[in-house]
Amino acid sequence: MIILGIDPGLAIVGLGLIDAKNRTDVEVIEWLTIETAARLPVSERILEIHKDLGAFLDETKPELVVIEKLFFETNVRTAMDVSQARGVIMLAASERGIPILEITPLQLKSGITGDGSADKKQVQSMVVQILKLKQIPKPDDAADALALAVYGALTNERER
Amino acid sequence: MIILGIDPGLAIVGLGLIDAKNRTDVEVIEWLTIETAARLPVSERILEIHKDLGAFLDETKPELVVIEKLFFETNVRTAMDVSQARGVIMLAASERGIPILEITPLQLKSGITGDGSADKKQVQSMVVQILKLKQIPKPDDAADALALAVYGALTNERER
Repeated sequence: MIILGIDPGLAIVGLGLIDAKNRTDVEVIEWLTIETAARLPVSERILEIHKDLGAFLDETKPELVVIEKLFFETNVRTAMDVSQARGVIMLAASERGIPILEITPLQLKSGITGDGSADKKQVQSMVVQILKLKQIPKPDDAADALALAVYGALTNERER
Repeated sequence: MIILGIDPGLAIVGLGLIDAKNRTDVEVIEWLTIETAARLPVSERILEIHKDLGAFLDETKPELVVIEKLFFETNVRTAMDVSQARGVIMLAASERGIPILEITPLQLKSGITGDGSADKKQVQSMVVQILKLKQIPKPDDAADALALAVYGALTNERER
């Protein structure tokens, strides 16, 4: 099963694509980011994200998209920018009939490491181990996206 | 000039369409709302908004879209929901190359009534007068959308 993890953002969207044969046989396919320039109006930035992500979905045909639910407490401005981007990201998947799994940061930590209080480093180490990578993928947004995809693989297996 | 005002939302999107011949000759064409059911997943709701708004834009061909900038101080959850919807709303306009004017609630009040401390009622009364309506359009979302469109007409005239 091809699973795409997406770390949403307006400036940078992390994408992590994996092939999950089963819970213990999970292979990375690729990871990348979509980036948009801050000098552009938001309307153009979301247009670019929607178009680039759409092309990526058409090319890679994931069967499941896993996206992080946002929790912001401090910066509402950032929350709204990221949410606008998240809207067009979810739209691109919906338009293609791809199921979307939304998970919280707590679910991600707990699902990957078994410990909801794990830090980002622990989550990433576990992802490196599961995907048999040599090191933590860069940038962070791509590493987070891969973690989301791995979560999808683990959950999906559990539900079979 | 056909101008569309949009009051963004996830549950209800207000649309107000006007024909602005010049600053003093502004006619309402129609107003309506796009509504989505709370029981549906957000991914389906934004898909519906994007599709319905897209069809409306294709049918009415506005030359300018005026949309409110969001300011939330209390409910981040609502801010994020509305922002996701706002993302796909802006996308629908961007995809068609329609210019988007984003204005703050303060700009709207001040632009319509000449007084940034005006309340919603005063703004709506002024809009009724400018558009020569018999009463304030219902629901509020549609009335707000018409106010945004009128703002676009006034601003645009000033810039000519």
